Amino acid sequence: MDFKNLAEQYKAELLNNVVPFWLNKSQDQDFGGFYTCLDREGEVFDTDKFIWLQGREVWLFSMLYNQVEQKQEWLDAAIQGAEFLKKYGHDGNLNWYFSLTREGKPLIEPYNIFSYTFATMAFGQLSKATGNQEYADIALKTFDIILSKTENPKGHWNKAYPGTRNLKNFALPMILCNLALEIEHLLDEEFLKQTMETCIHEVMDVFYRPELGLVVENLHTDDSLSDTFDGRLLNPGHAIEAMWFIMDLGVRLNRPELVTQANDIAIKMVEYGWDEQYGGIFYFMDRLGHPTQQLEWDQKLWWVHIETLITMLKGYQLTGSEKSLEWFKKVHDYAWTHFKDEEHPEWFGYLNRRGEVLLPLKGGKWKGCFHVPRGLYQCWQTLEKIDQLKQQ
Amino acid sequence: MDFKNLAEQYKAELLNNVVPFWLNKSQDQDFGGFYTCLDREGEVFDTDKFIWLQGREVWLFSMLYNQVEQKQEWLDAAIQGAEFLKKYGHDGNLNWYFSLTREGKPLIEPYNIFSYTFATMAFGQLSKATGNQEYADIALKTFDIILSKTENPKGHWNKAYPGTRNLKNFALPMILCNLALEIEHLLDEEFLKQTMETCIHEVMDVFYRPELGLVVENLHTDDSLSDTFDGRLLNPGHAIEAMWFIMDLGVRLNRPELVTQANDIAIKMVEYGWDEQYGGIFYFMDRLGHPTQQLEWDQKLWWVHIETLITMLKGYQLTGSEKSLEWFKKVHDYAWTHFKDEEHPEWFGYLNRRGEVLLPLKGGKWKGCFHVPRGLYQCWQTLEKIDQLKQQ
Repeated sequence: MDFKNLAEQYKAELLNNVVPFWLNKSQDQDFGGFYTCLDREGEVFDTDKFIWLQGREVWLFSMLYNQVEQKQEWLDAAIQGAEFLKKYGHDGNLNWYFSLTREGKPLIEPYNIFSYTFATMAFGQLSKATGNQEYADIALKTFDIILSKTENPKGHWNKAYPGTRNLKNFALPMILCNLALEIEHLLDEEFLKQTMETCIHEVMDVFYRPELGLVVENLHTDDSLSDTFDGRLLNPGHAIEAMWFIMDLGVRLNRPELVTQANDIAIKMVEYGWDEQYGGIFYFMDRLGHPTQQLEWDQKLWWVHIETLITMLKGYQLTGSEKSLEWFKKVHDYAWTHFKDEEHPEWFGYLNRRGEVLLPLKGGKWKGCFHVPRGLYQCWQTLEKIDQLKQQ
Repeated sequence: MDFKNLAEQYKAELLNNVVPFWLNKSQDQDFGGFYTCLDREGEVFDTDKFIWLQGREVWLFSMLYNQVEQKQEWLDAAIQGAEFLKKYGHDGNLNWYFSLTREGKPLIEPYNIFSYTFATMAFGQLSKATGNQEYADIALKTFDIILSKTENPKGHWNKAYPGTRNLKNFALPMILCNLALEIEHLLDEEFLKQTMETCIHEVMDVFYRPELGLVVENLHTDDSLSDTFDGRLLNPGHAIEAMWFIMDLGVRLNRPELVTQANDIAIKMVEYGWDEQYGGIFYFMDRLGHPTQQLEWDQKLWWVHIETLITMLKGYQLTGSEKSLEWFKKVHDYAWTHFKDEEHPEWFGYLNRRGEVLLPLKGGKWKGCFHVPRGLYQCWQTLEKIDQLKQQ
């Protein structure tokens, strides 16, 4: 395998195709912030602004500026997005709305904890790029609010009747694994360590179930399995994405056994989630094989596949596992032939089970300037490291 | 077309296949109420109890008892379901939960107005079968609560930020069209008339847009169109179902022009919603052709097709429209070859765009003992009326 060429392929796709698409097509020159509802050719088809995606795009351009090259246009994009978020994204007390109108009026209330996590990522990364203390403060204060909300993230918008079936969800500890490292430069060392340990424990010892060999999406709050729709739910892409967050923590904490464990779990999940009939990884599954509530269960989503590429490459880089490399090749072939749009920039997001385009958009309510460019960046970097290892 | 044979086909499917399935497979002999999560062969795969479906099954067995035959086992099923609902389905003040555990403990809070509408239908129809005043009171009081909630049905679970983009949804006035006739025997004549007029106005003069020739799912509260995801949304099956409710009101009020108008709208909607490539009616569409937020937009759902059969037959019966009859034939052929399970009882609910089974369940969170048997009953009755007309 020619890792050098592959690294070039991912780098070129990032810098010549995907990043220019978002830089040129998504910035709202009149009101600030980013359009994310962009059709196949990048034309705006809806102007609502979703805080997840506003935060993620600020993060992406800040990260590129910090990691790839100090390009003024990248920093300018990040700052204009952040200023829009700072002004309109929250209620004045850093309670982050879910969505805004084009002009910045609040549309959907701050019910969603991930609006907060992506705001933290955005301002944390941008504070690194700018040294701006106000951005750092927004990141830190928002992070504190997240931690204060872990018991009941949805507040009074939570529709679960208290006490009957108390479940906890995998997404928050999983995202916190990544977020802790994202804002490491802002956190007290002891607090950072404690947060990392808690997240690693929740992901690897609680939501990963050795008796099943699987990561589940929901558990009873006493850590036991639940034989209910929520408790049976698997989201292979989610679990696989978490495993590269864990590998990054394993590297950071110098715990190679954690990396190996994460790699093993990721391989189990991709084996379980792979569609033998049509290829690609299922979106949702039921661990007992029952019908899911999610009608979109069999669809093939861009982020699932892109996150899997990152995890498999990091697994191969860090453990030398041949299985990881084989899965990388398989998912690489699937992703580049199905998600990449050969006629217009950026990648498709939503395919049906057969791999045909289901929605021809390049961005929408949930797909923005995030998984594709972050994945291309991570794969490029990891492929370069593998290539360097091979040269030695 | 042999309407007599067709009437027999629908009647036999109802009485020999579908009704016995629910009677035998869905009753919980230990805790009362109904299982609705039933796999292809009718085995229970999840025991949660959803108030929509509990209410609808009580209604269905009560309706069969009232309309078809006074079978004791139908009445017993309706009463046991109603007693479970009466005891566990609400908070003591007829605020109806969304779902319960098997034993009847509340799982999801009373955020959903349609839990109330289907409870009203259930107790209204059962009060007719039993003459029981307590059931009648539950129906009437719940109906009052529904009317008091029309401005903000979700209460504090509403995530829309007040004032930015006030939308109203088609579903509630549409369901009220049907509900008014369902509990006609319990309502004051003047109040009934006023309710019917309001519903007819909302459906036919507000949500139906002559400039588009379409019924939209959401509008601004000032009745204007909204160029947003919600405001562009179409649900052809929903609109077509509403049209047979309107036809029933047209018959009840002796307003043939209302029936004709409803029939015309239904034909426009089925023409718009029909998938020319694979057959069947799409679940969701965007009136400007943009991507929908609903990933399941292209799926073919049982209720969409069954409700269309009812509407097209009633349209043909009441107006003689040949277009209605042609659409009935087309959708009849599609439904019987795609939704009916030839190997096991009851019908499939969820097909992919190509018409292949997506989820092999016979019941779940949203599919219960309702659209299939109600549709078979309505088609049977309407086909008999058409046959009688032809004999004259």
